[in-house]
Amino acid sequence: MAPKLGMTPLRREQIVQATIRCLARDGASGLRMKSVAREAGVSQGILHYYFTNKRAILIAALETVMADLNRRLEKLLEGSHDVQARLRATVRGYLELVDENRLFWIVFVEFWGEMMHDQEMSRINAALYERLRRTLGATVALGTREGVFRRVDPVEAGAVILALVDGLSLQRTFDARALTLERAARACEDAVSRYLAKA
Amino acid sequence: MAPKLGMTPLRREQIVQATIRCLARDGASGLRMKSVAREAGVSQGILHYYFTNKRAILIAALETVMADLNRRLEKLLEGSHDVQARLRATVRGYLELVDENRLFWIVFVEFWGEMMHDQEMSRINAALYERLRRTLGATVALGTREGVFRRVDPVEAGAVILALVDGLSLQRTFDARALTLERAARACEDAVSRYLAKA
Repeated sequence: MAPKLGMTPLRREQIVQATIRCLARDGASGLRMKSVAREAGVSQGILHYYFTNKRAILIAALETVMADLNRRLEKLLEGSHDVQARLRATVRGYLELVDENRLFWIVFVEFWGEMMHDQEMSRINAALYERLRRTLGATVALGTREGVFRRVDPVEAGAVILALVDGLSLQRTFDARALTLERAARACEDAVSRYLAKA
Repeated sequence: MAPKLGMTPLRREQIVQATIRCLARDGASGLRMKSVAREAGVSQGILHYYFTNKRAILIAALETVMADLNRRLEKLLEGSHDVQARLRATVRGYLELVDENRLFWIVFVEFWGEMMHDQEMSRINAALYERLRRTLGATVALGTREGVFRRVDPVEAGAVILALVDGLSLQRTFDARALTLERAARACEDAVSRYLAKA
């Protein structure tokens, strides 16, 4: 959505960051315009000037969280010349998100629930996931060309790797003691390298 | 929670089922006691007699959805004498849940979001996931003893398999066309069998 005339991107960003903090604390079900205004340090009038309703704020927060996730993943995948090392670093970096940027991760999972009954949010997320699968898949395809990975459908491989990191991160969120970062990362790297290993 | 005197389990169940339908339609953020009463065909007075607040209904719905998921998984794992066929059937059965019992799946994902800021729900879910990991892990351990799977930490293997089915189901929920059931099941079975294959 293009900002209205007179809006400052800085203030908009300040409201979005306040929304993310409110979401992490109260959840989507507990989110109130009033609390967001208080958290952002703006009047409810100002808040309504930037966002007409709760859903508009939610979508802005969703876009911010997703852009962050996508940026992190792309940065991780640029890290090394060795394609295997790069994929390992990516898997570990994604799993570390739960601890390092817990606020964003919590809000991301809360959005999964919201998307279940909101077509626009679901569409935004479907596009992100398509992109994540393709980004991961492209790294796998490169590894296949370099002869280090077996031949596999890149998008399917992207889906498998993304499922592993999402699923293990989710389990860690519920119970970080049962599944430490070290254990989750080792299990995930093991599963990915066996999945891509040549016969 | 033990039912109060005068409560009938049938009516309680009727309210819980109505809650699940409301959750799938409006999400946790849109859930209202009023809508649940209307959906269940009871007065708000009756509803409050059974459940003191929204959170109490949410927890009852969560327990119902989880018991269903656990029952399905245990039934799938009892299916065959061949441990490999059993694991394949379990993976496929879990992925089919998204289509066959979409209502339950939607509500389950919505709870993931709620759990992020509700310690009791998070604890209930942590116990379910611990159990799912152990159940899956026990089948893997059996396969190892029978000589069809490599030696692997059973709980870690349970975590990997659970991550794959949760993560792929999630991707299918957002975008069933990008990842058909056939494609997801094939990718998942492929990943699991390579993960457990002997060198």
